[in-house]
Amino acid sequence: MCQLLGMNCNTPTDIVFSFEGFRCRGGLTDSHADGFGIGFFEDKGVRLFHDDKASATSPVADLVRNYPIQSKNVIAHIRKATQGPILLANTHPFMREMWGQYWLFAHNGNLKGFQPREGQYYRTVGTTDSEAAFCYLLETLRQKFDHAPSLEQIFAEVNLIAQELRQYGLLNFLLSNGEWLIAHTGSLLHYIVRKAPFGEAKLVDDDVQIDFASVTTPNDRVAVIATLPLTDNENWQQLAVNELALFQDGEIVLRRTPDNPYYPTEAQGLAMARHAV
Amino acid sequence: MCQLLGMNCNTPTDIVFSFEGFRCRGGLTDSHADGFGIGFFEDKGVRLFHDDKASATSPVADLVRNYPIQSKNVIAHIRKATQGPILLANTHPFMREMWGQYWLFAHNGNLKGFQPREGQYYRTVGTTDSEAAFCYLLETLRQKFDHAPSLEQIFAEVNLIAQELRQYGLLNFLLSNGEWLIAHTGSLLHYIVRKAPFGEAKLVDDDVQIDFASVTTPNDRVAVIATLPLTDNENWQQLAVNELALFQDGEIVLRRTPDNPYYPTEAQGLAMARHAV
Repeated sequence: MCQLLGMNCNTPTDIVFSFEGFRCRGGLTDSHADGFGIGFFEDKGVRLFHDDKASATSPVADLVRNYPIQSKNVIAHIRKATQGPILLANTHPFMREMWGQYWLFAHNGNLKGFQPREGQYYRTVGTTDSEAAFCYLLETLRQKFDHAPSLEQIFAEVNLIAQELRQYGLLNFLLSNGEWLIAHTGSLLHYIVRKAPFGEAKLVDDDVQIDFASVTTPNDRVAVIATLPLTDNENWQQLAVNELALFQDGEIVLRRTPDNPYYPTEAQGLAMARHAV
Repeated sequence: MCQLLGMNCNTPTDIVFSFEGFRCRGGLTDSHADGFGIGFFEDKGVRLFHDDKASATSPVADLVRNYPIQSKNVIAHIRKATQGPILLANTHPFMREMWGQYWLFAHNGNLKGFQPREGQYYRTVGTTDSEAAFCYLLETLRQKFDHAPSLEQIFAEVNLIAQELRQYGLLNFLLSNGEWLIAHTGSLLHYIVRKAPFGEAKLVDDDVQIDFASVTTPNDRVAVIATLPLTDNENWQQLAVNELALFQDGEIVLRRTPDNPYYPTEAQGLAMARHAV
């Protein structure tokens, strides 16, 4: 299995503090040592760092720690290989372009026997179930929409695709096009929204703490999503199993769970629950 | 304008020595200081490093220097902006997936008034003529071939597309899918093939020299392509204006110039000059 880390903010923010704890789980405080990757959106562009070395000791991870990149959407992944050998081509997050935007995707789980037919628009380069799921997701969206539809339509479609993919096994994923970040919880994902008044936080995995009040402005809002909470003195929320949540500007703006009364029965059901955290 | 650097080898090789000289031209020995990028193929995967800072001082470039990544195909680019602002989305090399392979592209030149219609398969994210040319090149190939055709067919098609693009202005580019590297010379590109017996080399842009004999094996063959020679004591060759050359395993295996008698009049003309350097 693997672990996921995502960040979505209303203002470009560096992820150095959260990444510092997260990377320890790649070989130091946990065993996800089969490579790591992190992608930062900067406006429409993406900085993508991959390494097949463990994140705890990777020089690429050192750079990420030492070079505070400001981003509104970040997806990171540390890998413990299940399907596919330890190759750079199998390292998350995966990136493709669709509708003139870059899309990033990282997956934690195991989709057994998922072998979709070859896509017209999107094909895998590596050998993981995760990249196959990403390409299938994009292919399905692209076949349906020649240009970017509304946020609500994308969310509804991704929800349908996630339902389909869940039949093959465990599916936790993070997906972003630089404007928003979608989290799907198959088993385990937590999140926290940091906003004023900002307090102090202390990492679980390392003896590091930070006073967010000293590095933020009162209007900042930062959502951090992680497989397991990264700090031990903040109030992390757990997303429901099979929940799909869309973060924008540092808060959840669309969410859907099987138990949610607004859970739609068809893709175009747009009467979705909108509520800020 | 910009400068290009490429490497194509028969065995994974690090580009640290060449990159050390090349990066100096991004703000130190020359003025190409509007960002840089470098992409390394590792098997089918790609490590891609972009920065909107000058390569001479970028921390990302420091990482590339300090972390010898072994690769058979590398494309790097330092930018002096002509079209498009200094944004990460406008930073070369650009990457897309086609036929289940990643493709990298970097361009030096200026295509005036080149505004192809929106592609079905490939669309630009940024605002440069360079990314538009790359997307047009891939779109044309993808519309013609649903799966990867032969090397000769790709080369012939790329040659036709290059002829078309040249009508809009200056077009020096490097293109690679990880198996080979194509160089197109609109004005200025040099190359060198290093093979046994290996000698010493000294950078033009920095007081650094290397004895390749101490870091290679007798079977290694490494082609380096650069806008201007990187060393001052080796015999760099200049590619002809409007020449297209395909490097594989560290040597030119296909090349075509307007003066070459084998220069074909149609895409399927496969009787091309094959000769090793």
